[in-house]
Amino acid sequence: MIRVAIVGASGYTGAELIRLLGRHPSVEIGAVTSRGQDGEPVDRHFPSLSGCGLQFVDPARVNWAEHQVVFFATPHATSMHLAREVLDAGCRVIDLSADFRLRDRAEFERWYGVEHAAPELLKSAVYGLPELFGSELTDAQLVACAGCYPTAVQLACAPVLAAGVVSAQGIIADCKSGVTGAGRAAKVSSLYSECADSFSAYASAGHRHQPEIAQGLTRIAGESAQLLFQPHLVPMLRGIHATVYLRKSGASADWQQLYADFYATHPFVHVRESGAHPATRDVRASNSAHLAVVDRGDTLMVLSVIDNLVKGASGQAVQCLNAMYGWEPATALDAYGTSP
Amino acid sequence: MIRVAIVGASGYTGAELIRLLGRHPSVEIGAVTSRGQDGEPVDRHFPSLSGCGLQFVDPARVNWAEHQVVFFATPHATSMHLAREVLDAGCRVIDLSADFRLRDRAEFERWYGVEHAAPELLKSAVYGLPELFGSELTDAQLVACAGCYPTAVQLACAPVLAAGVVSAQGIIADCKSGVTGAGRAAKVSSLYSECADSFSAYASAGHRHQPEIAQGLTRIAGESAQLLFQPHLVPMLRGIHATVYLRKSGASADWQQLYADFYATHPFVHVRESGAHPATRDVRASNSAHLAVVDRGDTLMVLSVIDNLVKGASGQAVQCLNAMYGWEPATALDAYGTSP
Amino acid sequence: MIRVAIVGASGYTGAELIRLLGRHPSVEIGAVTSRGQDGEPVDRHFPSLSGCGLQFVDPARVNWAEHQVVFFATPHATSMHLAREVLDAGCRVIDLSADFRLRDRAEFERWYGVEHAAPELLKSAVYGLPELFGSELTDAQLVACAGCYPTAVQLACAPVLAAGVVSAQGIIADCKSGVTGAGRAAKVSSLYSECADSFSAYASAGHRHQPEIAQGLTRIAGESAQLLFQPHLVPMLRGIHATVYLRKSGASADWQQLYADFYATHPFVHVRESGAHPATRDVRASNSAHLAVVDRGDTLMVLSVIDNLVKGASGQAVQCLNAMYGWEPATALDAYGTSP
Amino acid sequence: MIRVAIVGASGYTGAELIRLLGRHPSVEIGAVTSRGQDGEPVDRHFPSLSGCGLQFVDPARVNWAEHQVVFFATPHATSMHLAREVLDAGCRVIDLSADFRLRDRAEFERWYGVEHAAPELLKSAVYGLPELFGSELTDAQLVACAGCYPTAVQLACAPVLAAGVVSAQGIIADCKSGVTGAGRAAKVSSLYSECADSFSAYASAGHRHQPEIAQGLTRIAGESAQLLFQPHLVPMLRGIHATVYLRKSGASADWQQLYADFYATHPFVHVRESGAHPATRDVRASNSAHLAVVDRGDTLMVLSVIDNLVKGASGQAVQCLNAMYGWEPATALDAYGTSP
Repeated sequence: MIRVAIVGASGYTGAELIRLLGRHPSVEIGAVTSRGQDGEPVDRHFPSLSGCGLQFVDPARVNWAEHQVVFFATPHATSMHLAREVLDAGCRVIDLSADFRLRDRAEFERWYGVEHAAPELLKSAVYGLPELFGSELTDAQLVACAGCYPTAVQLACAPVLAAGVVSAQGIIADCKSGVTGAGRAAKVSSLYSECADSFSAYASAGHRHQPEIAQGLTRIAGESAQLLFQPHLVPMLRGIHATVYLRKSGASADWQQLYADFYATHPFVHVRESGAHPATRDVRASNSAHLAVVDRGDTLMVLSVIDNLVKGASGQAVQCLNAMYGWEPATALDAYGTSP
Repeated sequence: MIRVAIVGASGYTGAELIRLLGRHPSVEIGAVTSRGQDGEPVDRHFPSLSGCGLQFVDPARVNWAEHQVVFFATPHATSMHLAREVLDAGCRVIDLSADFRLRDRAEFERWYGVEHAAPELLKSAVYGLPELFGSELTDAQLVACAGCYPTAVQLACAPVLAAGVVSAQGIIADCKSGVTGAGRAAKVSSLYSECADSFSAYASAGHRHQPEIAQGLTRIAGESAQLLFQPHLVPMLRGIHATVYLRKSGASADWQQLYADFYATHPFVHVRESGAHPATRDVRASNSAHLAVVDRGDTLMVLSVIDNLVKGASGQAVQCLNAMYGWEPATALDAYGTSP
Repeated sequence: MIRVAIVGASGYTGAELIRLLGRHPSVEIGAVTSRGQDGEPVDRHFPSLSGCGLQFVDPARVNWAEHQVVFFATPHATSMHLAREVLDAGCRVIDLSADFRLRDRAEFERWYGVEHAAPELLKSAVYGLPELFGSELTDAQLVACAGCYPTAVQLACAPVLAAGVVSAQGIIADCKSGVTGAGRAAKVSSLYSECADSFSAYASAGHRHQPEIAQGLTRIAGESAQLLFQPHLVPMLRGIHATVYLRKSGASADWQQLYADFYATHPFVHVRESGAHPATRDVRASNSAHLAVVDRGDTLMVLSVIDNLVKGASGQAVQCLNAMYGWEPATALDAYGTSP
Repeated sequence: MIRVAIVGASGYTGAELIRLLGRHPSVEIGAVTSRGQDGEPVDRHFPSLSGCGLQFVDPARVNWAEHQVVFFATPHATSMHLAREVLDAGCRVIDLSADFRLRDRAEFERWYGVEHAAPELLKSAVYGLPELFGSELTDAQLVACAGCYPTAVQLACAPVLAAGVVSAQGIIADCKSGVTGAGRAAKVSSLYSECADSFSAYASAGHRHQPEIAQGLTRIAGESAQLLFQPHLVPMLRGIHATVYLRKSGASADWQQLYADFYATHPFVHVRESGAHPATRDVRASNSAHLAVVDRGDTLMVLSVIDNLVKGASGQAVQCLNAMYGWEPATALDAYGTSP
C-alpha cells in the first residue's frame, strides 16, 4: 500500500485520477490539492465522486514526505516549480503536464513561452508511454506522461516506423479531439453554445503537441521525423481519433500481422480486424487504444483512438504507476469501453 | 424604410437580430453597438454573418436621433439606464431584456437585486407577446419583449385560463431549455464539457421568470394566478419545451377545438393534432410555437415548444416591430423550423 | 465462483452486463446468447468489449443446467416463454425485462398486449429494487428487476410516502430519459438525425411503466397510489432524471434529514446536500442514484437521477445478484459516475 | 412563376427543398411525391413544415407536363428510371442524386453496382456546381447537382489546381460529415445511441464520392487528378468539413489573394481571413461555403465547410434553378448561417 498526493485536482484529469485510484487496491489517496478550494469537499466540486470523503487542501499545507508518489494534474508551467522540492522529499513524481516531456529545453521554451524552471531534471525525466518506452519506468523517479494527441499518433506510427517500411518524412496526422481536451477553464470558445453541433480545425499555425510527437517519432524511427499535425475539435466529451497518413518506403507488407505482432504483449492496445473503423466510443472511459491499418496505395493509413482523459492522461498515469511498482498493468484500469 | 440600432450586439440575441433584420425589406441596420469591440467587423466575432459588412461601434458614439427604432439585446439592468435618453431622441424602443417587463417596481428589485433606474417608464411599457397582448403594440413607444420561458408557458395556458375551465391555482410548469438560454458569458457551468450528455434541473430555489409568468397568467385569468415553475437544462443549443400541468375546474371540454379557435388568427402558433408531441426541432430557428393539449384525467397537460432565441427573443422582437409599423406579421421571420 | 448465462446479449443491457460481470471476481460468464449471431465474436458486435473472448451462441444450444444464474436481457414477452424451463434446470433467474414485474396478470396483458405465458410464476417473482425490497432477494429464484423510470421515481418517493407526510394521490412524475432507453432497434424515431439537438415528450397517452410505478408506490404507501407519469426524450445517451411533485399532507418536516435517514445504510443512494441539482452525468456508468429534495410550498419536489443502463437495468441486476449470494453490494459496480 | 414537382420528398433533402422553395417568390410547389405516404399531409411527416398545406402524392399519379421543373430528391438508381419520361413531358430536371454525375457509365456501374438505365443522357447532363461550372446551367435540361463531399473538396482545390501551383497528384482529402448525410433510413449505424458522443472514420475501402471528386478535379486541373478521400462521421446534424492537403508544385504564392480573387464574384463563397478556422456552424442552414487556406511548408492546407443539406444538396439545387432561369442567385437562399 502506498500513499499518493494529487496536485491540481480541481480539473478533469485530477477528478479522473481520483475516480481511478479510488479503486486501486494498493493505493491510498492522501492529499488532493487545490489552491482555490482549500477545505472544500471534493464531491461538492465533482458530484460524480459523491461519497469519496476527500477534501481539497492548499498545496502549501501538504507534507510531501508523507507520500510515496505525487501526481501533478496541473496546467503547464506549474510542476516545474514544485518538482525539485517534491523529489527531494523522497517522493516519486508522475507528471501529467507537459513540463518534462521535451528533452530540448529551448524547444520547450519556444512552444510554451516561459523559461524552464527546472531544466536540470529534463535529462532524467522518463517519458511515460508504457507500450513504447516502458522499460525505463521501473526505476523512474520523475515520469512525464505522454500527451493525448502524442499517445494516439505514436501508437499509430510505431510499428511501421520501427520496421522502416514507411518514410519518416511527409507524415500527416489529421487529429480530432473531444472538448474535454480543452480543460475546465471558463472560456467562450469552450462553451456548449459554441462547440455543440459544429466541427472545426484549430491551431493551424502550430500546436504544442507537434514537437512532442516529432521527438517521439524521431526516437522510434531512429532518424529525424517530420510531420504535419492538424488538430480539430469534435462536439463530444472524450476521445481522440488520429487519422495518420504515412508514405510507404518500399514493398507492401502484411500490415495487419505487423501491427498485431508489435502489440502482441500489450493488453491495452487492440489491433482491430481488417476493415474495422475504431470509434472513440469503443474506448470511452477505458485505458485501451484501438488501431486499424489500411493500405491506400502509395499511402498507409492508420486509424487510432483513445480516451484523452484516460489513456491520454490519468489512465496512462496509473498505468505508469503500476509499471513503476511492478503491479499488474490493468490494476484499477478498465479494458472495456463504456459504450453506448 | 426605417433605420434601426441594435444595442449589445455581441451576444446571441444580438446576432440573431442581425440575421433576421438582414432580410427585412423595410429595415436598414444603422448601428450595432458593443462596448468592448468598437471598430471590429461583426463577422469576425460572428463568422456566420460573413458578408454583413457591419462594424461594432461603442454605444457612446451613436447618434440615436438618426434611428427610428432601437433594440436592446443587453443583459438585465442595462436598458433601464439608457431608455429615457433614447426615447427622448425620438426613437421607439424594443427591449429584449427584463428591465421593463414587471409592472411592479418592488417585484423587479426583489428578483433582480438592483434599484430600478427608470421606474416612471414601467407604466407605459407594453409587454411584447403579440398573440396575447398584440393590440397595445400599435402605438407603443417602449416594448418589453416577453421572456423565453414566459412566452412558452403563457401561450400554453392562455386558452384555458381565459376560458375559466382550469384553476389559476396549483399550476405546475416543468420547463426545459437549451443551453443558449444561458447566454454567451464564459462560465464553467456553461462549458460544453459540463453540459453535454447530461440533464439537470436548476434554480430550484426560484427563477426570475417566475414573477413574469405569474403576472401574465394573472392578467389572462383575471384573478391572481399561482404556479410552481421549475426549469431544467437540456444538452441542446436552442429550444424551450414547457410541460404544463393544470387542474381542471369543471367539466371537460373539446380542448383541441378550444385551442384551435383561440389561435385561429395567429399564424405563428400551431395547435398540433391530437396525439402529437411537439419537439423543439420542429420550431428551430423559426418564430413558430407548437402546442399540444392532452387530457390526463383531473389534470390538463399542455406541451409547448418555441425557439428561445427567436420566438423567445429576437424573432418576437421583430414580430413586435412588424406590429408597431403595421407590416405583414411574418416579414423577415420563418414559419418553418430548420429540421433536422 | 458461479457460472452465468446472458440471454439476449446483442442489445445495450446485454453488453452492459458483460462489461460489469467481466470484472466480477465470483462470476464466470458461460454463455451469451443471440439468435441472429450464433458463432460471431461478441466484440465484433460490440467493439468496446474487445478482448472479452466471448462468442454468441444460439439459445437453443445452451445447456442451462451448466449455469447457476441466467440473466434475461431480452425485449418484453420473451423471458416468460423460457423462464419455467430455466428454473426447472435448477438455475436462478434475473430478468431485466418487464415480464414478471406486475403482480396482476390482467394489468400486464392490458399494457403489453400479449397473453402471459407463465402467469403461475408471477406470485413468486421477487421485484428487484434492493434499496426498497431487498430482504426478499436472499432466497429469490426469479427476480424481476425494476424498470428504469420506476427505479428513479420509487427511490424519489419512498421516504415521504412511507412516512405518510405526502399524499399518495395527485403525484406528478415528469421524467426525462436518454435515448439508450429506446434500445438498439433500427427505428426512424431513434435516429441521431431525429433525436439530436431536440427535446420532446412521448407516450402522452400512457406508458407501460405507469402501472409498475403505481404498483410500487401503492406498496410503499400502504394505500392505493395515483400518479401522472409523463416521460420525455433527452438528446443524451444515458441517464434518467425524474422531477417528482408531491402534495404535502400535513406539517413540513426536515425533509433533508428524513431522506438521509431513510437511505443511511444504502451505499448507492446519495441524498445530495440542500440546494444541489443532481445531474445525470453525476451517475453516468455508475450504479448510484442521487436525490435532492426541495420544499416548494404546498408541494414537495424531489429530483432523482440514475443511469438507465446501470442502476436502471444491468447494474441493478448485478446488485440483485450480489444480494442473492450475500456478496458485498458494490462488487463489480462503480459508485462514482464517469464525468465528464 | 413556375410550377415544380419534388420527387422523393419524404427524406431530408426533400424536406429541405420544401423549406427553401416555400419562400421562393417565383416558384409554386405543385406536387411532392412519396410512394409510401400517398395522401398524407406533409407536415404530419415533417412537423417543422406545419402550415405548408401540402400532401404527398404517389409519383404514378403526377402529370409531369403540368410542371416546368422536376426535382429528384431520391436515393441513387431512381431518377435514371424516370428522367427520360419527365424530360419528354417538357420538364427540366434537377437531380440531387448521383445518377447523372459521372460522365463515365462504367465508372457509375462499378461504384453503384447497378446497370445505368439511361446512359444516353449522361453526355448532356450538366454538373451542378454553379461556382465552378455555372455557365453551362443556363440552357441545361438535366442538371446533376454535385454531391456534398465533392462540393466541399472541389471548392477547396479549384483556385490552386486551376492556377497550376499545386500538384494534381497526392491530394489527401480528410473529410468529416454530420449524420444527416446518412439520410433518414432506419439503420442501427445511424441511431443516436450509436453515433452520439463518438467519432470514427467510415468507408475506408472506398467511397462513392471518390470518382466524382476525381472527375471534377481532373476537369479543373486539366490533367488526371489523383486523390485519397477519407470520410469520417461527426456527432452533429448538419455540416461537412473538408481538410485538404495539397502538395505545392513550385514557389509559394499569395494564397489568400489567389483564393479571394478566384471567388470574388461568387456571393456564397467566403474566403475567410488569414488564421481563421471555419466551423460548420458558420454555414448551418445557409447556402454559403467558407474557406481558409494555410501554408504548411511543402503542403498547402485548405479548410472548407458547407451545410451538406443546403450547399451540399437542396440549396445547391435551388441555386442551380436560379441560374437556369436567370434569377438573382440568392433568391430563397440564406447567406448567413444559423448560429448558434
